[in-house]
Amino acid sequence: MSETGVKNEQSETVLFDSAALKLDCGVTLNHVSLAYTTYGTLNADKSNAILICHPLTCDQYPASENPQTGRDGWWTQAVGPGRPIDTDKYFVICSNVLGGCGGSTGPQTDNPDGSGPYGLNFPVITIADMVRAQNLLIDHLGIESLFCVIGGSMGGMQVLEWAAMHGPRVFSAVPIATSARHSSQNIAFHEVGRQAILADPEWHAGAYYEKDAHPRKGLAVARMAAHITYLSETALQRKFGRNLQDRESVTYGFDADFQIESYLRHQGMSFVERFDANSYLYITRAMDYFDIAAENNGNLAAAFKDTATRFCVMSFTSDWLFPTSESVNLVRALNAAGANVSFVEIESDKGHDAFLLDEPEMHATLSGFLKSAAKARGLIEGGRDHD
Amino acid sequence: MSETGVKNEQSETVLFDSAALKLDCGVTLNHVSLAYTTYGTLNADKSNAILICHPLTCDQYPASENPQTGRDGWWTQAVGPGRPIDTDKYFVICSNVLGGCGGSTGPQTDNPDGSGPYGLNFPVITIADMVRAQNLLIDHLGIESLFCVIGGSMGGMQVLEWAAMHGPRVFSAVPIATSARHSSQNIAFHEVGRQAILADPEWHAGAYYEKDAHPRKGLAVARMAAHITYLSETALQRKFGRNLQDRESVTYGFDADFQIESYLRHQGMSFVERFDANSYLYITRAMDYFDIAAENNGNLAAAFKDTATRFCVMSFTSDWLFPTSESVNLVRALNAAGANVSFVEIESDKGHDAFLLDEPEMHATLSGFLKSAAKARGLIEGGRDHD
Repeated sequence: MSETGVKNEQSETVLFDSAALKLDCGVTLNHVSLAYTTYGTLNADKSNAILICHPLTCDQYPASENPQTGRDGWWTQAVGPGRPIDTDKYFVICSNVLGGCGGSTGPQTDNPDGSGPYGLNFPVITIADMVRAQNLLIDHLGIESLFCVIGGSMGGMQVLEWAAMHGPRVFSAVPIATSARHSSQNIAFHEVGRQAILADPEWHAGAYYEKDAHPRKGLAVARMAAHITYLSETALQRKFGRNLQDRESVTYGFDADFQIESYLRHQGMSFVERFDANSYLYITRAMDYFDIAAENNGNLAAAFKDTATRFCVMSFTSDWLFPTSESVNLVRALNAAGANVSFVEIESDKGHDAFLLDEPEMHATLSGFLKSAAKARGLIEGGRDHD
Repeated sequence: MSETGVKNEQSETVLFDSAALKLDCGVTLNHVSLAYTTYGTLNADKSNAILICHPLTCDQYPASENPQTGRDGWWTQAVGPGRPIDTDKYFVICSNVLGGCGGSTGPQTDNPDGSGPYGLNFPVITIADMVRAQNLLIDHLGIESLFCVIGGSMGGMQVLEWAAMHGPRVFSAVPIATSARHSSQNIAFHEVGRQAILADPEWHAGAYYEKDAHPRKGLAVARMAAHITYLSETALQRKFGRNLQDRESVTYGFDADFQIESYLRHQGMSFVERFDANSYLYITRAMDYFDIAAENNGNLAAAFKDTATRFCVMSFTSDWLFPTSESVNLVRALNAAGANVSFVEIESDKGHDAFLLDEPEMHATLSGFLKSAAKARGLIEGGRDHD
């Protein structure tokens, strides 16, 4: 048992060295490692597994400390004993995405050709490729059908891709604060972040590993820009307003006079200690390319045709990165596909990041949906738990 | 007459070498140059002068081509013969702001102490300092009272500062798409831009002029981030959506696959050809510091106590950088101060940049307001023009 009280926490890295992973870009990867963590116990008929898909800058530790970074689990409010995603009842799996920097194969991994870390020789991946890699992991774990696939933001994109590509393996799906395609504005913000990294002379065209360098300044700027989009103006105004940082009056200079400046600089600087710049390039690119409708001749509903998956879609009122209109668009398509779908827009002024925070209505919705799905799946009887 | 048909266009730079300009930071500048352009003819009693205050990255050429950059006037839709700000009727003045890079004194100007360009030795300025410098110019032109002071965005901040500091000199005022204080989110975006510039090794702590360098990459990233905030998500979606740039399908790489990426890169690259990075630091800082209420013990209405100025406040529905709520806050304070104020929120999906574009309702509002104010000022009689 870990310090967070989650039973049977296990972190492993599995190498798929025989499975050929054919990527959207045409390249086939023959050596793919996925680092993953599981919490709880898989039941006898392997029907209680929940796959959590992590957002852009998170990792395979939603409910426990990441031993590499020392950071607490990123979704402990939602995942753990007695939490909505209850590790006493469900077998919870979370893997670092393909292209990530938490132990899974990505640009910082050594190229099997012996030339050292991939760098920019790593193939450009898509959200579907991330899901293909996860699919290998679910095979590896001997699980035929996942009870639920859950994720927010980029995690939600993976949830949708799971439902679209592997519907029969997905009993239920919870895409939160996400979209079926990345918007023009969101591509724009990603492009700013990438250009900030590319502008950093320490980036060395992606080959900085060999030079013991890291484009910290560029990556920090990318993180700062992105971080603003994760919050709402209301939240920023309430949290920081125009408050000054440890001073009585402005200094008429370029120091961090304002708390918001100090906060953003801290966000930037701490991020570069735990994240790889090339991974940031590849993962943001995967999000930009995400467009499930395009994969189905522009017909989003077609992606979910005849789906038996039960969907619970959630959005937040103050999320301007993945606004409710994106979820509404998705829900319309799911309805057109005849899917079983519930949709909740949650009142919150915390912006996009709300899904990672203490949002009782989100947690209540998640609990209720999983309970109902568990009943339908036969995991609990008559609405009452076995245990 | 210039090519744009504006009569009596004159561009000059005036050096105030005897007037001591005491800045908010405590420094006094004894040699201040202001580059300015005028259009039209000042009438006999000097009562028909309109001062246009330019936004962050514009210049003293609202209605005519900038001979240095070759760019068209930035507000030709609003300013010119027969336009709402009618250069056949009014004497229109626009000066490059203090701290700017269009000919007025700023960080790229030679320090009078003979040490070369100021660079970071230039004192940090405020919006009030910009207005103090403009006030010297209005003195220089022998104008006792301006018929109107007009500006959008940072220009609107100057308008408000004019009305607060020099109310008796301001017969009427039109602050557009602006705020009485810079919000936390806006400071945050500016800080990202500044950090991008500071991260560029070509910045050389601001002393790049002597090294024949320019932090182009950093400034381009700053411009890209800022440019997104000038548009609306709707405008981006309509203009670019997920359209690809001169290609049939994505390239699985980091080229500008999407039109929005290509557009942003172009915005960044063309900006660095016409703008100085240090000026960008100083002017964004001036905006961050802007908080008229703070200058009056937190009481915004007190800043406009007993004002005789007629105000016309305008905002745009899709402007998320200076949202309508900021204008409403301003209008409430003006009402509390007993000011003569009209307020129009204009329906537009073009975002913050709407004020620079073809917005018939804005132009109609501006025309109507100026006509009414001209009548009150005795510039026209009985609602009919003399000419």
